[in-house]
Parts: sequence; C-alpha cells; structure tokens
Amino acid sequence: MEDLSELLSLSASQSPPPERMLQILTAAAKLFATQGFDRTSMRDIAQECGISKATLYHYFPDKDSIIRPMVMGTTRSIFQHVSALDDPERPPLERLRTLMVETATFFERYRWAWIAGSAIFWNDPQVRRRKQRLEWRDRYETLLRSIIEEAIRRGDMRPMDVALAGRLVASTLSWLPRWYNPEGPLTAPEIADQFYGMIVAGFMPRPG
Amino acid sequence: MEDLSELLSLSASQSPPPERMLQILTAAAKLFATQGFDRTSMRDIAQECGISKATLYHYFPDKDSIIRPMVMGTTRSIFQHVSALDDPERPPLERLRTLMVETATFFERYRWAWIAGSAIFWNDPQVRRRKQRLEWRDRYETLLRSIIEEAIRRGDMRPMDVALAGRLVASTLSWLPRWYNPEGPLTAPEIADQFYGMIVAGFMPRPG
Repeated sequence: MEDLSELLSLSASQSPPPERMLQILTAAAKLFATQGFDRTSMRDIAQECGISKATLYHYFPDKDSIIRPMVMGTTRSIFQHVSALDDPERPPLERLRTLMVETATFFERYRWAWIAGSAIFWNDPQVRRRKQRLEWRDRYETLLRSIIEEAIRRGDMRPMDVALAGRLVASTLSWLPRWYNPEGPLTAPEIADQFYGMIVAGFMPRPG
Repeated sequence: MEDLSELLSLSASQSPPPERMLQILTAAAKLFATQGFDRTSMRDIAQECGISKATLYHYFPDKDSIIRPMVMGTTRSIFQHVSALDDPERPPLERLRTLMVETATFFERYRWAWIAGSAIFWNDPQVRRRKQRLEWRDRYETLLRSIIEEAIRRGDMRPMDVALAGRLVASTLSWLPRWYNPEGPLTAPEIADQFYGMIVAGFMPRPG
C-alpha cells in the first residue's frame, strides 16, 4: 500500500495530515489510475474506503481536491526526493545511477498516485496547474542534464547531445510505473539499476 | 495532419474507407488525445469536422466506435509496419535500428491516434479488447527480443537480460509521442536513430 504522507507533508499545510485523509488519497489514487478520473465517482471512493459520503466530503469537497495533490505533488516530490539524495561531490556517473535508482524507488512507492496524476496531466483543463507541473519536471530535467554535462566535461562520458541523452534516461524511467510488475523478480530500483548499467556500458561487447 | 487510412484499411472492411470517415477519425483522435475521451462529446467531434451531428451519426453510432480503431488498430499496425520492414537476413543491429526508426516513423504519423488509444487502454472496461491489444504488443516485443537474442548469439551484443534490454529499447520509444515536438529540430525518426546510437555504443568513452 502506498503511504502518501510524503506528498501531503510537502504541501502548504504544516501539520501532519490525518490518517483518514491518507487512506482516502491512497484508495482514490488506485481507482483513478485503474478506471480513470472521469469514471470514478465520490461514491466509489467512499465505498472503497468503507466510509460514508458525508465523511468523505468532510475531508475533500470534490474530486478535484483529491486529484490535486497527485497532479502537483508527485512531480514536485520526485524532484525533491532525488535532489535531496544527490551529492554534487560524488563522481557524475555515480550521481546518475543514484538519480535513476531513486526515481524508481519513488515510482514504486507512489505508483498509483503517479499514474493517476500524469494521466490527468495530459488533458488537465487547468493551464496554471499544468504550467506548475511542467516547472517541476523542468527542474528534474535540469538536474539530470547538469549531471550528464559534468560527466562529459570530466571525460567519464563521451560527448553527445545532452538534452537527448537526458530524454533517453528519463524515458526508460517514465514508462516504468506502467509496465513494472510488483510481483516480478526485480524491484523497480533493481530494474533502474540494470537500465543504468545497460545505458552507460552500451549494448556492444567491450573490445578485446 | 494524420492520415488514418493505414489503420482503417487493416480492419475487417476490405473496401477503402470514405474520406469523411478518415476526417472524423483524425479530428476525434486529436480531441481525445488533448482533452480526454470522457470529456469529448459527439457534438465536439461534429463541430471540429464542420459537419452536423446527423452526418456524424451516419458514420459512427457512438464514441466507442470511433475510439475502437485507435485502441485496436494502432498496436496491431505498429507491429505490422515494423515486421513488414524487418529483414531477417540483415545483421541484427541493423534490424534493431530499423525497428526503432520505423516505430518512431509510425508514432510521428499517428501521434494523436496513438495517444488517444493508449490513454483509453489503461482503463478500458472492455477486457477482451484490452487482451487483444496486449497480444499485438506481445508480438512486437517478441520480434524485438528475437533481434536482441540473435545479436547476442552472434557476438554483436554483449550478453544481457534480453527481456530487460527489450523493455529499455521499447521505453525510449513509448514516451516519444508525448514529449516530442513536431516543430523541433529533429524528426521523430531522427530522434530514434540517435537513441539507437546512444544505446548501442553506450555513454562511456571508447577506450584508447
């Protein structure tokens, strides 16, 4: 089960969110991700939580207030999660590996919230919210690119198009929450670690 | 503008689809992709095409019949497109490059239909349709993995987890229709070609 407190505690509110609120967000995230935001009703969410509609409305006035922390929170939290663990003193390829593995750790923890938030993102009628989300994504990409740039500058990576290389790395992770199977042999961070090894060393055999 | 005839001509119907039908599918694909399937009405689609609702209903009885070729058709058509251009006599790394570039060519051509179809796929209540789509995706992945396996067998690729390597390649392409900018400096096939080069040669400098 996802614990969404990391997403909520990063919101404007300072006090820790009540247990009930986290339970509602967790249940709603899975419903939104699996049956779609528009097809999920407040009644479905209350039913999934085993609470009355009145109790649900006590915490959230509408569906939009439930999806909001997922749309805004996940992109911001991913950036904050990976940037807090990034150590600019370490060698850049090691930093790249940490960024990849920690992004996958985050996706594993908040899988449904991420899927629900990014699904709505693509047709979010609220332009301002869309813009804010893009700003957090851009910070994530800027961090990723700065690591790649430093790796190239130090000669740890061969010269290449930094923006495209960043897209390549980010793409291998962005699709992960969709296809990855929590019952499978590898955890999401283990998959990211393998992807790191494949991307850095490449597919071709080492000469000699 | 997308020409969706390739998707339609691959359907059960043998005769070429009328122009009007293609126009409706093209307009609907973009609306579904940008504002969501559930938020798009038959009225929106008619308006976008500049036709009456009566004309629209003459071709399609409901929204479901419009999204169906996108959900079913795109996954099948990608497989058919890349497998028709795959030549098992060529060296495996060359086949991998063709598969990647041609997948991107397909995405560029049917961008909106692909986004609309895959967005609905994740919460498609029709289990049978979902299952069929997965079968076409599996065929695509089987082809991709067989190419990687042969590359490893021939020593053109270092030994690695074939399933994960296939996921890595597919992921870099799956995310492409979302972020790629048709006005940008590179076309989608050019991006795929660069990704191919990065993945095969890897990020590290060649020794010596």
